[in-house]
Amino acid sequence: MNPLPDFLPPPHELDADASCPSRLGWMQGSPPPPERVVRFDTGDSRKFPQSRWSFSHTRELYPTLNIGRGDGPVAALPRALRDDLDDIALTPIGAGKPIRFAQSLKANYTDGIVVLHRGRIVLERYFGALGEHQPHIAFSVTKSFIGTLGATLVAERVLDESRPVTHWVPELAGSGFGGATLGEVMNMTTALDFSEVYTDPDSGIAAYARAGGLAPRAAGSPPPEGLYAFLQAVRPAGVHGAAFTYRSVNTDVLAWVIQRAAGERIESLLSQRLWGPLGAERDAHIICDPYGMPFAAGGLCTTVRDLARMGEMIRCEGALAGRQIVPAAAVAAIRGGGDPAAFAPAGYALLPGWSYRHQWWNSHQPDGMFMARGIHGQAIVVNPGAEMVVARYASHPLAANANLDPASLPAWSALADHLARHPG
Amino acid sequence: MNPLPDFLPPPHELDADASCPSRLGWMQGSPPPPERVVRFDTGDSRKFPQSRWSFSHTRELYPTLNIGRGDGPVAALPRALRDDLDDIALTPIGAGKPIRFAQSLKANYTDGIVVLHRGRIVLERYFGALGEHQPHIAFSVTKSFIGTLGATLVAERVLDESRPVTHWVPELAGSGFGGATLGEVMNMTTALDFSEVYTDPDSGIAAYARAGGLAPRAAGSPPPEGLYAFLQAVRPAGVHGAAFTYRSVNTDVLAWVIQRAAGERIESLLSQRLWGPLGAERDAHIICDPYGMPFAAGGLCTTVRDLARMGEMIRCEGALAGRQIVPAAAVAAIRGGGDPAAFAPAGYALLPGWSYRHQWWNSHQPDGMFMARGIHGQAIVVNPGAEMVVARYASHPLAANANLDPASLPAWSALADHLARHPG
Repeated sequence: MNPLPDFLPPPHELDADASCPSRLGWMQGSPPPPERVVRFDTGDSRKFPQSRWSFSHTRELYPTLNIGRGDGPVAALPRALRDDLDDIALTPIGAGKPIRFAQSLKANYTDGIVVLHRGRIVLERYFGALGEHQPHIAFSVTKSFIGTLGATLVAERVLDESRPVTHWVPELAGSGFGGATLGEVMNMTTALDFSEVYTDPDSGIAAYARAGGLAPRAAGSPPPEGLYAFLQAVRPAGVHGAAFTYRSVNTDVLAWVIQRAAGERIESLLSQRLWGPLGAERDAHIICDPYGMPFAAGGLCTTVRDLARMGEMIRCEGALAGRQIVPAAAVAAIRGGGDPAAFAPAGYALLPGWSYRHQWWNSHQPDGMFMARGIHGQAIVVNPGAEMVVARYASHPLAANANLDPASLPAWSALADHLARHPG
Repeated sequence: MNPLPDFLPPPHELDADASCPSRLGWMQGSPPPPERVVRFDTGDSRKFPQSRWSFSHTRELYPTLNIGRGDGPVAALPRALRDDLDDIALTPIGAGKPIRFAQSLKANYTDGIVVLHRGRIVLERYFGALGEHQPHIAFSVTKSFIGTLGATLVAERVLDESRPVTHWVPELAGSGFGGATLGEVMNMTTALDFSEVYTDPDSGIAAYARAGGLAPRAAGSPPPEGLYAFLQAVRPAGVHGAAFTYRSVNTDVLAWVIQRAAGERIESLLSQRLWGPLGAERDAHIICDPYGMPFAAGGLCTTVRDLARMGEMIRCEGALAGRQIVPAAAVAAIRGGGDPAAFAPAGYALLPGWSYRHQWWNSHQPDGMFMARGIHGQAIVVNPGAEMVVARYASHPLAANANLDPASLPAWSALADHLARHPG
């Protein structure tokens, strides 16, 4: 069964069930047999199907910084589980016939999903190597957390979007970020010689991963080493502010600015500003580089439920359980979205009319749906019109979300329509 | 000021205050300046004075396994802080004149200490890079946690001390552990070609650390790689059961046996059997090797308070807050101690008449004091007679506890005497 549209080939010969990590036996046994070990230093941990295990076991492969939830109470997520959602019909983009919602989860190699409707859990499901209390890597969904911190500090006038990033980080003066404003960095309209092609080992993102210790780096490799050394070596290419181009390095520059302006580390800000106030169930963590700097572009790991708490707070204009966590003005800026005209040239065929602002993706649909998106299927979906939030972690064989969107975007729409029509 | 006895040279030109990691600026700034980065891959993170930072930031340097506290309530540790303890006088072994208790903390580069008297916190102090909610590496205090798990499974008849370890781990048949019983492994009376000399880079313990990824390992280094591959390659030397010799490899064999017999991983057993029931305040974690196996001989990291909870439970014969956590028989075996005659040949000049059983050190003093001990000053002191427990983390420049005992052992005795005479 391949529930994906005909124009997309099956992403891998192993479908979600056949690649289930417990079935394949990755890292099982004391010790696991050599051919079933998932290793970082060989590069295998990022490869499918090993990734179905490793995305749920990031801290066992990387050094990490803790993001503490503190001592406060857990914010209850009331449960109102429904059995009518699995059978919702949806037609993947480009496909001739509909599939069921439950099939879409398998088609996209979902590891865990929580759907909130009006703040209550209506669906919660785990697959693969993930459990309800286990953190999964968020990849670029991390960016939306950093963007939310940034938008918060803008609302509090600690940061000013119109200022050049060199105001806070003079070390970037000689780099491609030299003439860029903070707003251009936050909205990824910087013009840089940096390619974000996940399938190319010679791309900027691959070199960045090696520099940060996020991918294996041969001993004696030439500099730069460390995320922030790399950022200083990024070259300019073009004129800032003209067009959106998705480049992860922007987020780490944003994080660098935030740390300088706030005088505090990212993991500490995430803990105090979000994780504690959100009443998260579990501590989160973030991968760090050899200099102890957080991988702000993609290293956050959380449970699915805690990811849903973040989405719900954003849906509720920055408040949760009667407490304002993020300034309403910051959330309003995120929800307002960016400039679709600046976004269009990037050529996302499946995201027509969308925009990017403060590290969130905005659909500009009538229901106001906006998202946090990470490679291999990580997502927060916030649908204000349908009063719906989806938190999804996945381990799809392919990195680019263009491989998941054909089944996912119609799934979120069908779910929203169904919940609006049958509020339960 | 050198409060240590004259026969011990100052351990380092930098005393506790001068080596304070915040004063030296290790890992401060975003990013820290290159000369203030503490790196694992250079081997620097294990060296003094960098160790004063890294022992409180282990997970930022190593891959780790989480030991969850679960969702239960925190077990309250009532506070009855006293201001009369700092001035207690004690004479370090071999010294001509007394020092104050507060001086002994500095002399031994204490990072954090909690003293419980009748279950109440009477002293709590943090130094260096450690805070109350931060985990610090326990080094070989880890062994006493594993020994407690082992003693528990013996009491539950899941394990039998008289059986050979190959009953559970046949892979060890060709190694030095081949003819050893579980009891010999638990009490470290195995006879092995393995040297535990921390200052010798060619020692068994140094090779073991490299094999397990606990110390930097050059790319392309010859096997064995992984803790359990190393254990299978340890050669015999002599006759098992004759004498105690402290060798860390025994503890990882014990952990291997436990995992096989219980059908569960060590981090999961520590979570379910100890961390949840103890009502720990924070999750703990343990370093893992490239095969995902826990470094049971020395990789545990906990907060000081949670370490104190473990000690208090052991002092209270396995019970805490009215709940039996570890079978009383298991604690009785630990408290009973081992055979001083088997211990004596090891030649610990400062531990006359002591013994080792189930991975705990027993003084056989009238007050029944016994300890968990880890290099660089990690300790749990359980003094049943004085109804006292001490949990201490430290980052002494020298590994061997013989460098700390001259000031520490008299400190624990003086504290116990004082608390018994002035119960408050």
